[in-house]
Amino acid sequence: MSNCLVAQSGGPTAVINASLAGVIRANQLNPVYDRVFGGIHGIEGVLDGSLYDLTDLSGRDIDILKQTPSSALGTCRYKLKRGDDKDYKRLVEVMDEHGIDAMFYIGGNDSMDTVDALSEWAQANGISKRFIGIPKTVDNDLVPVDHCPGFPSAAKVAIEITHATYLDYAAYTRPEVFILETMGRDAGWLAASCCVSGDVDLLVLPEVDFDAKAFLNQVQKKMALKGECYIVVSEGAHYADGTYIAAGKAANDGFSHAVLGGAGQALKQIILDSGIAPRGVVQDLSRAARSSNFAQSLVDVTEAFELGMSAHMRSADPSFTGKVVGIRRASADGAYNAEFFAGPASEFANAVRNFPAEWILPDYQGVTEEALDYFRPLIEGEPKLVFEGGRPATLVPFNKR
Amino acid sequence: MSNCLVAQSGGPTAVINASLAGVIRANQLNPVYDRVFGGIHGIEGVLDGSLYDLTDLSGRDIDILKQTPSSALGTCRYKLKRGDDKDYKRLVEVMDEHGIDAMFYIGGNDSMDTVDALSEWAQANGISKRFIGIPKTVDNDLVPVDHCPGFPSAAKVAIEITHATYLDYAAYTRPEVFILETMGRDAGWLAASCCVSGDVDLLVLPEVDFDAKAFLNQVQKKMALKGECYIVVSEGAHYADGTYIAAGKAANDGFSHAVLGGAGQALKQIILDSGIAPRGVVQDLSRAARSSNFAQSLVDVTEAFELGMSAHMRSADPSFTGKVVGIRRASADGAYNAEFFAGPASEFANAVRNFPAEWILPDYQGVTEEALDYFRPLIEGEPKLVFEGGRPATLVPFNKR
Repeated sequence: MSNCLVAQSGGPTAVINASLAGVIRANQLNPVYDRVFGGIHGIEGVLDGSLYDLTDLSGRDIDILKQTPSSALGTCRYKLKRGDDKDYKRLVEVMDEHGIDAMFYIGGNDSMDTVDALSEWAQANGISKRFIGIPKTVDNDLVPVDHCPGFPSAAKVAIEITHATYLDYAAYTRPEVFILETMGRDAGWLAASCCVSGDVDLLVLPEVDFDAKAFLNQVQKKMALKGECYIVVSEGAHYADGTYIAAGKAANDGFSHAVLGGAGQALKQIILDSGIAPRGVVQDLSRAARSSNFAQSLVDVTEAFELGMSAHMRSADPSFTGKVVGIRRASADGAYNAEFFAGPASEFANAVRNFPAEWILPDYQGVTEEALDYFRPLIEGEPKLVFEGGRPATLVPFNKR
Repeated sequence: MSNCLVAQSGGPTAVINASLAGVIRANQLNPVYDRVFGGIHGIEGVLDGSLYDLTDLSGRDIDILKQTPSSALGTCRYKLKRGDDKDYKRLVEVMDEHGIDAMFYIGGNDSMDTVDALSEWAQANGISKRFIGIPKTVDNDLVPVDHCPGFPSAAKVAIEITHATYLDYAAYTRPEVFILETMGRDAGWLAASCCVSGDVDLLVLPEVDFDAKAFLNQVQKKMALKGECYIVVSEGAHYADGTYIAAGKAANDGFSHAVLGGAGQALKQIILDSGIAPRGVVQDLSRAARSSNFAQSLVDVTEAFELGMSAHMRSADPSFTGKVVGIRRASADGAYNAEFFAGPASEFANAVRNFPAEWILPDYQGVTEEALDYFRPLIEGEPKLVFEGGRPATLVPFNKR
């Protein structure tokens, strides 16, 4: 008997379950494994022996799983330590108990490091278990790929909400600034993507040290020129000394008010204190962007599903371990096309790919046309969702059953 | 020559333009008026003579207008004063200049008061101009109707984001509370609607004085019972003395941290200070809910469009003035059905309809089944949106042309 295990780790996305569905469906089309087990709460739950049999999920449930946001198996932030055998041995024990030969791990760069560490350890110890990575992250910051599943759908929601809130803001005559805050602690991909809407006047990224004086100068110019200023800020935006804007540097700079909360609230306070605008509105996208299933990108959900399929199919080769499947951008007759490849997990682990400096316009003016050309094809297409009672149907998470 | 004028006022919604589209389309089907003028920025722009000819909008533009959120004519918060003739006379002057006999005003209770004041003044002064109201408000707080256009779509977005963020939250194992904040300064309709998701553990409404001790007791119970607590709070939630939670009463109550920002951030601080949970996540729906066009309710957009049609059609009767068209709930064979009626504008003006006390469960436990039965039919159905480049297409706002 040869079984496989699939688990999810790190922050949820809108399409991480599509990759899970891909692994399950691939095994239904070609039963390389007798059973497909889901690990509950990632490696953490697997070490506890917490598994759920996914082998025979119905076609309808697979369709609904693809549109169910977040991690249907539950997630964890557990990082395996190199150099301490305990967890490794316990994992092999659990895998042996269930006849599991191969494990698929869907996650971000920490999880890809786990895949790397596990396959290295197994090979060094003459254990034939195999470990295969499937990437996901709304941060879009993995190194050797064109983009990461989860990011396009988060970008699509962010772009749609940018446009909707811009229209809301633009209906008024009163002098006021609008500030949208997105996720992105180290990399500004999500914030930058909002520029696809065409509505962003000023963009504040973590990739550029924040200079309050230069920024306020730009706000003033936009207000004078257009009577409005729509600002997007990434949660991780920071001053030159590394202090996050969100941490309330403004308060330390002699402004009158204490600043708590996120980068958006802090920017608002800086603008109000400067007297440039008497009012400001802040919209924090926070988790709504990464977990919304009502605005999935068809490109994203399809690619995430196919990555799951591809990982499963490649794993039929018994030498396939310590690898991650990823997406390169190819162009077919000038149109966007995704190309799937497999690379060593070590190349995917522990590095952060920032938003490219050459795509950032000076003075908070947004991004280049090249950047927009990168984003645009990723948000194309709308999956035909299954609705129930006016809401996109979802599966009950396996970790709640 | 007989023309009409249509304008928008107050806070935008996702379907206020569907009512505008209804007036325009009705006049194309039966040209009661030679021209349909749009007033830019509500009564404020109309007094400046700022009009836009909408008569011949194409079928495609009308379809896209129906899915364009916010106020495509721009909005204002200008309130006509009773007892000062100046604005009234100027308005009649502008209407005369453009041959306008009837004005449709799409707005909330302040705007319905404007309709009432204008028609009263016109009748008292022997002026044959007519004024007709079309309601809209995400707050759902107009008195003589079952519900207000704009509310169902905002509720649909709020419910979908509640479920998506609940799934995101539920994927983790760490002890943490989740707090979603919705709009609703005086009435808790939007916050209450989130309970349709089935995911809300505790609900904090403006209709019930906030008791921090009793509330924390409930948070503790949920955390002990389920290891999670998903909380929805309305921005207008307040203590018995009228102080908004958002205003930072916690800081005055001897807790250690200053509290700024919204009700959600304040609740989080109160919970962290109590030591019940070490972490809390806040998602502020703010304007994203009222202005999102990617999750319109088909019931809502259809009703908003038909209210515009109905107002135009009824206005063919030359005695029709000082009236507002509204929706009553009827049932056809047990299923939800909307019934259109016209009532005096005075009945729609200046009163707030709170979320009913008999629909509120004690101890922040949410709402009754009756309340859920009220909400459910309103969010049914998804309009077939026109997409361009992965985003729902929108018209360039007329106030920006």
